[in-house]
Amino acid sequence: MPNVKHQKWWGWGEENVFFTWENKPAFAPLVKRAVGIDLRPRQRDTVDFATADVPGSQISDDDLQALREIVGATHTVLDDELRIVHWAGKSVTDIIKTLQNRFERVPDAVVYPGSEDEVQALVKAAVERDLVLIPFGGGSSISRSLQPRPEETRTVVSVNLGRLNQVLEIDEVSGLARIQAGVLGPDMEEQLNGRGWTLGHFPDSFNHSTLGGWAATRSSGMQSDKYGDIADIIRGMNAVRPGGVVKLRPLPSTSTGPSLREMFIGSEGRLGIITELWVQVHRIAEHREVIAYMFPTWQQGLTAMRLIHEAEVHTTFARISDARETEFSLATQKAPTSLKKTVAAKGQDALWAVMRRRGWDTSAMCIAYVCFEGAKDDVARKKKVVAGIVKKQGALTLGSGPGALYDQKKFDTPYLRDFLLEQGVIGDVSETAAPWARLTTVHKNVYEAAQSAFDELGKTGWIMSHMSHSYHSGACLYFTFAFEFTEDVDREYALVKTRIQQAFIDAGGTLSHHHGVGAEHSPWMEQDVSPEGVELMRGLFRTADPGENFNPGKVLDSPDTLFKVLGSEGSGQEQ
Amino acid sequence: MPNVKHQKWWGWGEENVFFTWENKPAFAPLVKRAVGIDLRPRQRDTVDFATADVPGSQISDDDLQALREIVGATHTVLDDELRIVHWAGKSVTDIIKTLQNRFERVPDAVVYPGSEDEVQALVKAAVERDLVLIPFGGGSSISRSLQPRPEETRTVVSVNLGRLNQVLEIDEVSGLARIQAGVLGPDMEEQLNGRGWTLGHFPDSFNHSTLGGWAATRSSGMQSDKYGDIADIIRGMNAVRPGGVVKLRPLPSTSTGPSLREMFIGSEGRLGIITELWVQVHRIAEHREVIAYMFPTWQQGLTAMRLIHEAEVHTTFARISDARETEFSLATQKAPTSLKKTVAAKGQDALWAVMRRRGWDTSAMCIAYVCFEGAKDDVARKKKVVAGIVKKQGALTLGSGPGALYDQKKFDTPYLRDFLLEQGVIGDVSETAAPWARLTTVHKNVYEAAQSAFDELGKTGWIMSHMSHSYHSGACLYFTFAFEFTEDVDREYALVKTRIQQAFIDAGGTLSHHHGVGAEHSPWMEQDVSPEGVELMRGLFRTADPGENFNPGKVLDSPDTLFKVLGSEGSGQEQ
Repeated sequence: MPNVKHQKWWGWGEENVFFTWENKPAFAPLVKRAVGIDLRPRQRDTVDFATADVPGSQISDDDLQALREIVGATHTVLDDELRIVHWAGKSVTDIIKTLQNRFERVPDAVVYPGSEDEVQALVKAAVERDLVLIPFGGGSSISRSLQPRPEETRTVVSVNLGRLNQVLEIDEVSGLARIQAGVLGPDMEEQLNGRGWTLGHFPDSFNHSTLGGWAATRSSGMQSDKYGDIADIIRGMNAVRPGGVVKLRPLPSTSTGPSLREMFIGSEGRLGIITELWVQVHRIAEHREVIAYMFPTWQQGLTAMRLIHEAEVHTTFARISDARETEFSLATQKAPTSLKKTVAAKGQDALWAVMRRRGWDTSAMCIAYVCFEGAKDDVARKKKVVAGIVKKQGALTLGSGPGALYDQKKFDTPYLRDFLLEQGVIGDVSETAAPWARLTTVHKNVYEAAQSAFDELGKTGWIMSHMSHSYHSGACLYFTFAFEFTEDVDREYALVKTRIQQAFIDAGGTLSHHHGVGAEHSPWMEQDVSPEGVELMRGLFRTADPGENFNPGKVLDSPDTLFKVLGSEGSGQEQ
Repeated sequence: MPNVKHQKWWGWGEENVFFTWENKPAFAPLVKRAVGIDLRPRQRDTVDFATADVPGSQISDDDLQALREIVGATHTVLDDELRIVHWAGKSVTDIIKTLQNRFERVPDAVVYPGSEDEVQALVKAAVERDLVLIPFGGGSSISRSLQPRPEETRTVVSVNLGRLNQVLEIDEVSGLARIQAGVLGPDMEEQLNGRGWTLGHFPDSFNHSTLGGWAATRSSGMQSDKYGDIADIIRGMNAVRPGGVVKLRPLPSTSTGPSLREMFIGSEGRLGIITELWVQVHRIAEHREVIAYMFPTWQQGLTAMRLIHEAEVHTTFARISDARETEFSLATQKAPTSLKKTVAAKGQDALWAVMRRRGWDTSAMCIAYVCFEGAKDDVARKKKVVAGIVKKQGALTLGSGPGALYDQKKFDTPYLRDFLLEQGVIGDVSETAAPWARLTTVHKNVYEAAQSAFDELGKTGWIMSHMSHSYHSGACLYFTFAFEFTEDVDREYALVKTRIQQAFIDAGGTLSHHHGVGAEHSPWMEQDVSPEGVELMRGLFRTADPGENFNPGKVLDSPDTLFKVLGSEGSGQEQ
């Protein structure tokens, strides 16, 4: 078995990591109120792979032999469990289908190339033998970027790049590193940190996603305010195509026509396979603080976030949870287990009392976290500017205690989703970006859209949101929604998800700020980039891949699984 | 005649604006030493258009009628002078050919559409009638982006967008403006400034270039450190194609697959015609200062510029001239004409004396300008950080006097080129970007490459450079070169230019940081973005424009006029 780290086959992340609610006294009551269920103790520690009913590999001996000749027998895998690990990403519907034994088209083989030359040979073989290749990073996609098309009749090969996991060189003067595409976040940071550097790119999926995956799906990390989206971070790359390797040298900026770099970023495997990248790296910041602030209302908090960016404070991140997410966040606090924590909890109670005395509606208050990095005096100066801005918007500074908590918990959320699934509850996310002037409307309309779906389904549903990723002209709004599902889960999910996505577009937001398109969001591409824009992009894919050998059906022309289940009840969108 | 501002037909900019050397005592001696000629008084105030021998329009009555029906008779122009204004950009070879009556393929008509609908009708007519359309902004291209292919036999129509010159709306909350593509820099800034806003984009061509032109050629303004390259500034756009309008809504960031926005930016008309843009606009800075510093050496200055960026000072620009350009800059100072200026000049002499006492080789010293914007205390703080950095690199702070001078002179340089042409001297520019670690080598190698060409031509030649446009990972190096030309000017120019361009690429730089590709730089595309990258881009152009109706021969597959003239003496590069 190849020496590559995989996620568990039946859910997010690693075995034996669980979300626990028993030590969080406010959590069960919130869930009861939010989605109407009584939480039960967790039953599921793991799922026996023997329960999986896996469609057999359809690979021919001849194709198998060809793959083995390219990557070696050890790195050509037909094993059922690994094929299931590679059959999909980790969207909530992927996991439900997996748990319910509703596999669609499962890859016939998984290969683990050990060099760019091997990737080149695989890509050539794909064209010669009419195979379908799907590049696989950490498998964390929640936009269905990794599934073969259900109707695919040709041999499907998942190309796991996990062996290409080295930081190859660091240009310490220019702050550039050349890194192989298959490296997982923690492995990469460890290699960089060892030499005093960091990429500064920390998406929620960080522990289980790769640099190449971030590139191919237009990822953005929680610290993008300082370190940039992945498109800013990437300065050059190698991408393997049937005709050869597209080599984009590391350049701070260039005027060489339409940007090939920006074509490969977000291409989700449709233009070829990215094998290595030149990326901007930064010296690890001398000093770092995350400060929490509490705002009396969402609107004041949102205004403060905008003004912080406008004031050119250059924070590392600035995010604010709306009232619902604030409530949720507080409900996931652990009960105090030590004297120190009891004192802290009493401090918190005292704070709430202060707020009530000030006339706050504590059910409307919103928590914000702002991260500052730099030299100590620089951090102090930035904090002061931010303190002035938030004060004018009525906020109280909570200090660095909750901020430190935020920093520790940031990658844990997806495990909660798996826990909820066992409880019969879907918890999922949808995110967008929009100009500052439209954020309030987007937020309001998405709430209404989700509620309309919940009402239609006769369910008690939950939605909450935060704003993060500030830009000159706008920001990201990130929504989490939840509801109890039934046997009719496909239709239930499709209704809620499509209503939310449509609300994004109708209010001037984009179909996704940083989760990519995959098959999940492709129904909105025409509305987002216009029909003529889709036509031009389709032309690019056709000219780049006339035989549809490279992850076909992603970004554009995807098999529809959302509107199709809705049938005539759908929102009437053109596919 | 359409109410649109044009540049003069025989050179840069406006009639009756001239470079004058008689009041600059150090200038003539420098020119003598640099290129070996004795300056004569300017003879040429203008050039009579009657001396131009203009190829006639080849448009058919039928095509002419069709154009008139779309844009109206007033806005369909066959006038010879306007056809010559639109036949080329303003590269030095364009101007030489124009002055020498060596016109190649001149557009058969110039049209001035007044709306996006008219542009749409033109684009459709181009496909139906097999016309060639070349979008025309301010006509300032120095990369041959505007010439028809010399061998073009079809009807060629230059599409001047000058009537589309309005700021249509400003979203004051999001800092976004929707602006028509044909607006000239000063006209746009006037409209924005009137409402308290600025784009902050000031390329050298600012007075004679348009927003759409900046988009189509991947422009960068001198204040890009703060305001971004044009690709950062543009957040959405309308681009007209035969099948309809690609509409990209204004978004701070998005995850919608390969970036269509970044495909149109730099597309030089090959994917369609850009009609309007959503751009980031900024409140006019409260306070602005440009401070000059003098460094003992180029290397120390370059290091300081890098450290300023690394320290996250967030300057508006930071540029440093090398020793040659510093000398040139000082040589264009006017003789003092008032007591105040005499005192200032004496102050300067005193400063030189200080430097000599410190042991500086004054022929090696390099002048830098750093621009600070913001609230007064913010500017003061930034200045202090920069003062600390430059001091460690041995620099003296010259203060804001020379800085103010720089701010005033910034758009005047191209007139110098026209003046030199009359003196028989080519003065031209070539610029690149490269990682910080490579800048010293690029600089050194370009000097050697230019010298090798001068030697080969048996000429006294001149080259000088500055660094500007800082990024995390590198910066732009901008070179100006000059030599006396003969009747063999095509070969002389080609030799010097190709040697410089090749030195860029060989040392890890790009073929251009912000002048676009056009036909001039296309021979280096394969070396810059790799042969397979070119192949992919070629596929995009073919799928977008199978009939080659939209500015064919730009960016890729351009008619070769550099290596062809060099023949076997060329650098042996693949075309």
